[in-house]
Amino acid sequence: MLSPSSAIGVFDSGLGGLTVLKSLNARLPQEDFIYLGDIARLPYGTKSPEVVTKYSLKCAETLLKQNIKALVVACNTASAVALPNLKKTLSLPILGVIEPGVRSALAEGQDQTVLVMATTGTVKSNAYPTGFQNQGFKGKVLQLACPLLVPLAEEGWFETPITEQVLNSYLAKVPIDLIDTYLLGCTHYPLLLQSLRNCVGTQKAIVHGGDQLALELQEELTKRNLLSNKKKGSLTFLSTDQISAELPILQKLFPQPITFSVIDF
Amino acid sequence: MLSPSSAIGVFDSGLGGLTVLKSLNARLPQEDFIYLGDIARLPYGTKSPEVVTKYSLKCAETLLKQNIKALVVACNTASAVALPNLKKTLSLPILGVIEPGVRSALAEGQDQTVLVMATTGTVKSNAYPTGFQNQGFKGKVLQLACPLLVPLAEEGWFETPITEQVLNSYLAKVPIDLIDTYLLGCTHYPLLLQSLRNCVGTQKAIVHGGDQLALELQEELTKRNLLSNKKKGSLTFLSTDQISAELPILQKLFPQPITFSVIDF
Repeated sequence: MLSPSSAIGVFDSGLGGLTVLKSLNARLPQEDFIYLGDIARLPYGTKSPEVVTKYSLKCAETLLKQNIKALVVACNTASAVALPNLKKTLSLPILGVIEPGVRSALAEGQDQTVLVMATTGTVKSNAYPTGFQNQGFKGKVLQLACPLLVPLAEEGWFETPITEQVLNSYLAKVPIDLIDTYLLGCTHYPLLLQSLRNCVGTQKAIVHGGDQLALELQEELTKRNLLSNKKKGSLTFLSTDQISAELPILQKLFPQPITFSVIDF
Repeated sequence: MLSPSSAIGVFDSGLGGLTVLKSLNARLPQEDFIYLGDIARLPYGTKSPEVVTKYSLKCAETLLKQNIKALVVACNTASAVALPNLKKTLSLPILGVIEPGVRSALAEGQDQTVLVMATTGTVKSNAYPTGFQNQGFKGKVLQLACPLLVPLAEEGWFETPITEQVLNSYLAKVPIDLIDTYLLGCTHYPLLLQSLRNCVGTQKAIVHGGDQLALELQEELTKRNLLSNKKKGSLTFLSTDQISAELPILQKLFPQPITFSVIDF
């Protein structure tokens, strides 16, 4: 039996999913969130569907022990390859980041050219093109694997000339003049938004699923009478390995002092 | 009871250790080698000593089941943090890459300034400065964590302007005019040798432990009467996740067709 006073579980392979937590916490400040970063096994983006599914089920199990009322898969690779399996196995509301990402791109128009930028694992899964197709999209979807962007974001090179050069080097592989909307298909990439903006100019749309996901979670909880009635929710951080508070991602997204408790599985 | 006809086990978090296997195979072509890449959990370089030690023991156990006569830890991070534990637990010859790396730098002179370039995990462990101290080194040892070099090598950006800029950006943190020898303290870095050479010029020494390790393994096997008397040894590749044969590291180091068998642990 799910309870409105329970927390919402959120997991990612590491800290990229904190961009999603930021969106969730902004829209649902009255909710308790438990974030699990599977640092000990990151990254997921370069690994096979079998391995990512195995790790995702472990993350979900760990969060379920905390009696959560909903689960957010804040990792595109895990959403792309493990979501059907998670939904089949578990009986609580489960939201991934792919479908909200697709819908946030669709809001820019039904007949456009979208470039999905993502990890190798997400690109190979074809989850985004399938997602657009399922929504009856009439435009064109291109995909671009950008494996170096995660380490660049983790290093904190958010707005450096090198990051722009890496982006330009990837973008040289696609016909950028034809692209209307850039869809950030990895939860790390919003951290590099300004660098991408510098590369593609001010006229193109750049979207990602975080805010849309927060809206959809709110709707789902409302529908099921599971919204918290607290004044202010709490944030709990768990990780599978030690984390240094000086990490650039943490400092950029959560400047307040936060503590990760290390758990093992 | 160890047998001369048994294979030599080699493990790394991923494929960087293939640079070491290349050196071992060149010096000891009559030996069978079993290489294990723990792709499902890579990289080790950003993870804690506890987690890296746990994974390293698992790798060693897996190779011991193949009845190996010696174990090579072809990963600097694992050598830095897990070698004492492995040596305490296991009773066969075990060689890591740190000490041979130190000795290959010492060959350049006993009173010089050495820059150790390595992963964050290796730098934090202080294994290299300790190694130099243990050898009675009279010069100066500086360390530089270069976390982006592993993903750059894995992407196959061996000699690109971006790789040189990343290298220059890291090197700007140290007094390069004072440095005599660059010690590559990560098994991925020999793949970026030419880029580093372009950055530091032709007058400076750039060393790594691979060839020295091969020599020391040969001496150890000779001493223990464990050298193989085959004409030509075999190479067996195991990994904990699927691998694509098109990976740039594989193509650069082993252009012949090779197969990885996927094992689970």
